[in-house]
Amino acid sequence: MTPSSARLPRTAVIREVGLRDGLQSIATILTTEQKREWIRAAHAAGQREIEVGSFVPARLLPQLADTAELVPLAKTLPGLFVSVLVPNLRGAESAIAAQADLMIVPLSASHTHSLANLRKTPDEVVTEVARIRAARDAAGSKTLIEGGVGTAFGCTLQGHVETSEVLRLMQALLDAGADRVSIADTVGYADPGMVRDLFEEAVRIAGDRFWCGHFHDTRGLGLANVYAALEVGVSRFDACLAGIGGCPHAPGASGNVSTEDLAYMLGSMGIATGIDIDRLLALREQVAQWLQGETLHGSLWQAGLPKTFGRAVASL
Amino acid sequence: MTPSSARLPRTAVIREVGLRDGLQSIATILTTEQKREWIRAAHAAGQREIEVGSFVPARLLPQLADTAELVPLAKTLPGLFVSVLVPNLRGAESAIAAQADLMIVPLSASHTHSLANLRKTPDEVVTEVARIRAARDAAGSKTLIEGGVGTAFGCTLQGHVETSEVLRLMQALLDAGADRVSIADTVGYADPGMVRDLFEEAVRIAGDRFWCGHFHDTRGLGLANVYAALEVGVSRFDACLAGIGGCPHAPGASGNVSTEDLAYMLGSMGIATGIDIDRLLALREQVAQWLQGETLHGSLWQAGLPKTFGRAVASL
Repeated sequence: MTPSSARLPRTAVIREVGLRDGLQSIATILTTEQKREWIRAAHAAGQREIEVGSFVPARLLPQLADTAELVPLAKTLPGLFVSVLVPNLRGAESAIAAQADLMIVPLSASHTHSLANLRKTPDEVVTEVARIRAARDAAGSKTLIEGGVGTAFGCTLQGHVETSEVLRLMQALLDAGADRVSIADTVGYADPGMVRDLFEEAVRIAGDRFWCGHFHDTRGLGLANVYAALEVGVSRFDACLAGIGGCPHAPGASGNVSTEDLAYMLGSMGIATGIDIDRLLALREQVAQWLQGETLHGSLWQAGLPKTFGRAVASL
Repeated sequence: MTPSSARLPRTAVIREVGLRDGLQSIATILTTEQKREWIRAAHAAGQREIEVGSFVPARLLPQLADTAELVPLAKTLPGLFVSVLVPNLRGAESAIAAQADLMIVPLSASHTHSLANLRKTPDEVVTEVARIRAARDAAGSKTLIEGGVGTAFGCTLQGHVETSEVLRLMQALLDAGADRVSIADTVGYADPGMVRDLFEEAVRIAGDRFWCGHFHDTRGLGLANVYAALEVGVSRFDACLAGIGGCPHAPGASGNVSTEDLAYMLGSMGIATGIDIDRLLALREQVAQWLQGETLHGSLWQAGLPKTFGRAVASL
């Protein structure tokens, strides 16, 4: 008999977002050289997708002011797929100029959160994506556009967000020219039942264009939510080394899913990520040094890998 | 279309094991009066199954020396199902005398861990369960016997444990007269894929006699593992308030799944537990006071309930 878990994806990608979602929500500002070292070491540990920063005005997020310098460095690393976040057309023009592989345009399905965080309604963001698509095509650029639907499970300002609204906005992003779409639980409100139901619908609508799940571990359900998404065929997840991250407009929303715990869960299940966990844990130690005084998260770094880890992979 | 999550159980039971698995692995010794207060408050918060202690010699676990006093107190609380752990026939005789509703006999599927922790082979534990069954029946007692198969996903001493051995021992426990069987990830080695595969088989073999899943959150996968077990129909889980607990013979195996985070996950998914989470969090605060200096776990107490929590339940 084939066990149920055999229906899970055989491979998965962890997109490192610690350099963007992580750093933007903590006080410490890393130097460009430290970020370079982080990117190089993450690549050496086998990570192949990294969100290196955000093209927002430096006065808003001084932590990410060096994004334009980081993209070219990251692009020199063989096989590395380089993403950046862009809040608007202006940011997209910078991403196109820097030749990023992908630019993520965040949209908040909560109208209240959208106005507070992006100063636009969700539908205004959809319109902006259409402009970005036109600019990208006019420039003959290959930079992919990802529309990321955030606060998809509710938010701390508005409370409930309708599933139908999340799916409507996701479809609107595709119609406006997004090459990829993603769903984010920006404030850690999702449970695995919600994830399974919403992601099943999202994958049905977007097919291969459904790109990524983004979970915060605010209430401890981050990895359970990843598992629920895996079960409906999603195989790319955002994560932050040491679980740093959050949302400045969502009090208490600290901590993305931690890269190292996620890499362990996937590896344990025999889902190939290409990541060398020992190297990743060494990098975590380095980054923790740089971020002294900040609250870090994750469990694996304390407990270590199980004695049995890698057994399934080794016996393939 | 019915969403996938609708196939999950409608109700679930969280068995509080903080007073046994939690307290036995930390240095602080609570007074009998503190434990009484804990049991009373847990009952008032809606918990209906509590493992109040263990009938082991007081010199081995002074933290649990007052178990014989706690059972009668707990039995006075309306609707409370009172469990105790018993390592052998002698402990079982005490549980029968105290009129506990259920006694859990731990068996370790790892032979090495079994010898180190219980000083018996797994099959010797099976034989002991047969003796306990005979004694229970001879006494005309109604105390149920639960055989708990621990280190079911491997252990820190032996490493790998064969699934076939776990299932063989579970069947042997049933054959020896156990009324219920359970599976425990004693050292936090399980991932949701493993849980789904093993629990699916276990439920197929034991049917309604499969009683409980017991997960440690050592590497952050505790709640993901609970979710995987829910998906194959298991609906009773051990948990410790504030995530205290571990295994004295498994270094690094700190922290059971935390009761409050689990109650939140189940409640969020619309799975009724009867637990009032605000009361549970108040109790956590009290227990945290008593356990000052001990490492506690869990996320919900920091982040609080989502603004949207209870919406699904309220709208039923």
